[in-house]
Amino acid sequence: MVAELISVGTELLLGDIVNTNAAFLARQCAALGLSVYHQSVVGDNEERLAEVLSEAMERSDVVILSGGLGPTEDDLTRETCARVMDMPLEEDEHTRRRIREYFSGTSQKEIPESNWRQAMVPRGASVLDNDNGTAPGLILEKNHKMLVLLPGPPAELIPMFQKKAVPYLRRLQPEVILSQTVKLCGIGESKAESRIQDLIDAQTNPTIATYAGTGEVHLRLTAKARGAEQAEKMFKPLIKEIRKRFGTAVYSLKEEETMEMVVVRLLKKYELTVTTAESCTGGMLAARIVNVPGSSEVFSQGLVTYSNKSKRRLLDVNKATLKKYTAVSKETAREMAMGGVLASDADICVAVTGIAGPDGGTEEKPVGLVYIACCIRESVVVEKHQFRGNRSRIRELAVINGLDLLRRCILDHYAGGGHHS
Amino acid sequence: MVAELISVGTELLLGDIVNTNAAFLARQCAALGLSVYHQSVVGDNEERLAEVLSEAMERSDVVILSGGLGPTEDDLTRETCARVMDMPLEEDEHTRRRIREYFSGTSQKEIPESNWRQAMVPRGASVLDNDNGTAPGLILEKNHKMLVLLPGPPAELIPMFQKKAVPYLRRLQPEVILSQTVKLCGIGESKAESRIQDLIDAQTNPTIATYAGTGEVHLRLTAKARGAEQAEKMFKPLIKEIRKRFGTAVYSLKEEETMEMVVVRLLKKYELTVTTAESCTGGMLAARIVNVPGSSEVFSQGLVTYSNKSKRRLLDVNKATLKKYTAVSKETAREMAMGGVLASDADICVAVTGIAGPDGGTEEKPVGLVYIACCIRESVVVEKHQFRGNRSRIRELAVINGLDLLRRCILDHYAGGGHHS
Repeated sequence: MVAELISVGTELLLGDIVNTNAAFLARQCAALGLSVYHQSVVGDNEERLAEVLSEAMERSDVVILSGGLGPTEDDLTRETCARVMDMPLEEDEHTRRRIREYFSGTSQKEIPESNWRQAMVPRGASVLDNDNGTAPGLILEKNHKMLVLLPGPPAELIPMFQKKAVPYLRRLQPEVILSQTVKLCGIGESKAESRIQDLIDAQTNPTIATYAGTGEVHLRLTAKARGAEQAEKMFKPLIKEIRKRFGTAVYSLKEEETMEMVVVRLLKKYELTVTTAESCTGGMLAARIVNVPGSSEVFSQGLVTYSNKSKRRLLDVNKATLKKYTAVSKETAREMAMGGVLASDADICVAVTGIAGPDGGTEEKPVGLVYIACCIRESVVVEKHQFRGNRSRIRELAVINGLDLLRRCILDHYAGGGHHS
Repeated sequence: MVAELISVGTELLLGDIVNTNAAFLARQCAALGLSVYHQSVVGDNEERLAEVLSEAMERSDVVILSGGLGPTEDDLTRETCARVMDMPLEEDEHTRRRIREYFSGTSQKEIPESNWRQAMVPRGASVLDNDNGTAPGLILEKNHKMLVLLPGPPAELIPMFQKKAVPYLRRLQPEVILSQTVKLCGIGESKAESRIQDLIDAQTNPTIATYAGTGEVHLRLTAKARGAEQAEKMFKPLIKEIRKRFGTAVYSLKEEETMEMVVVRLLKKYELTVTTAESCTGGMLAARIVNVPGSSEVFSQGLVTYSNKSKRRLLDVNKATLKKYTAVSKETAREMAMGGVLASDADICVAVTGIAGPDGGTEEKPVGLVYIACCIRESVVVEKHQFRGNRSRIRELAVINGLDLLRRCILDHYAGGGHHS
């Protein structure tokens, strides 16, 4: 089965936004076993869209369109697809109700007239409900061709595709390509790759590929199989071997499980609570933990101590320590972590202090120098990092490594130093 | 003049990489006054590339191709373009010399045989030297059509385009297209659009378009003009009219200026400091402020008080308030903001408390209910919001609206309630 992507939006043609939707959808198609040979971008222009769409339908079985489903007049995807497929638009009562419900949940009292356009649905189409906006997605099927229409904003497109569109697409392709992710932290991509080069070279089904994330490396095992069960059997010995080589650097085997989810899961498992003391990351570490639903069980408070004064006031860091070693030092990180535990009733505190730049670096303490400390059961571990990149990347690297140190400390203290996440 | 982009590469079709080149080239074309109506992605496949290229040449004057100029066998762009343009390949002595020089500067002693393919140039083509790799760019001109071939890696493509390709393209188009952004917060896209529908309808040069961001709306004014000065003159009366209609909802006129940058700029201007007291946003608000370089002047500490206990301990929120009104209430938000000021030496405190979901909502207090308070000069403003979306979207909307409330409070108190950001 051949799929093709059409992204609709003048903002893409002008280069105002980067087409991350196309990359997401392409990856998803690959995982579903759909071959993609063409992607196009076209503006909010009915004639040109119709032309590109007709061409795409000639050479592909499935055409996935994103964008142009909004309420405004320049949003033409719905109308154009209905016309090309010859499926006239009709008002959909279900979608009208959902739009009414959507607005009743917001502070906006009057529903703009234009929003009702989004309740017009091509006759015979399937509606994909939008849980994060007013524009519903649509599936149009006719003469063995399928059009999938998705809203443009990634926050709406991604969950809608995964939850609502995938079941339709899976029907089309019985032999599936399944993937299994192995997530690593605390090791670079080249190093990770060289450590399993023999496996990468030897394997054809499943294959192994490496992907670099921020401070993380993901290994993707991909198998062509008749079903999930068969694929799982193929992955199992490979995962065992990978675990043997990387030990606790393997933090998850689940695509959707982030580092903070693992941390919250472990804290719950061992009935522990954590607090944070952040300088250069300015609240990002706490925010990542709080992003996990249900984190209130394990996280009660966090402190952002950006100035020396606040480090002293809130964390009781010694004036002499700050003077002698400065705020970005092993000693300050240690005292921040200990102070964080004392300032709360948490079992563990992670502390971060560093120089995120662009200013503030010296020859001795350059931009990117970050100390991360973890205080657990009265013992404190401090790790020193030298990160590369701009301000925002350095802070992100500090956060992921802070979470990883927390994870490893919990495992060391509570899982008998075992290698199980 | 109409330009069109073709990105060549199987890694794009698989979604392994995001097509940032297309966004870069599109922006550059817009700035050069070239209209772009189509972008395509095609794999390293000679037949499909030739087909897409022929189509592009029919409808556009300039086709800019990126990728597929590498030394390996699956790099076919050079050969395919030469064939379609009927300009046979010949060895180029200048490029051979440059490849030899490139390798002499590296630790690699022997030049791989395959690299010599990169010295083959279509007869009559102009060579764009590559200062960051071995693949030269090419310009093929014939029958009033121009093909621009660029290497795929952004580190090679970007400098080559800017330094070597722009002079060729500028010859084609003396008029430029310039844009001006007007950023709004606290108003939905439909509502913003309906308020300026008359302007949108009336304007052809400059044009006005609306773009929705998370909690923000951006208006883009686009003018075709002989230069920056003329464009500016065309934007001026329009901006004045937009400001008149939206008042303080206009928070910036600079494309690259984020809400947190505006906030930090205003705090510096009035020599104020701010602190944060966050519940559901869990540190995100502080992190956004700290993301602005130089924010240490205006931000010293922030508190993440996720539990009731920590709200009492760190912010001195009344036990009775929490009991009577619960943690997500106007009253608690107010006390958090006042407590935040008292717990620090800051002039202002922004406090956020809400239900980010997916659990914790009730009929009376549903998921998405967020109270944001700002305490400034002993007066406290509290705003109630009902946001829609998943946990992460609700938190992001709370953050941008928190920053916006902070901005408006500063303006109200220090800019004489004036409408200047």
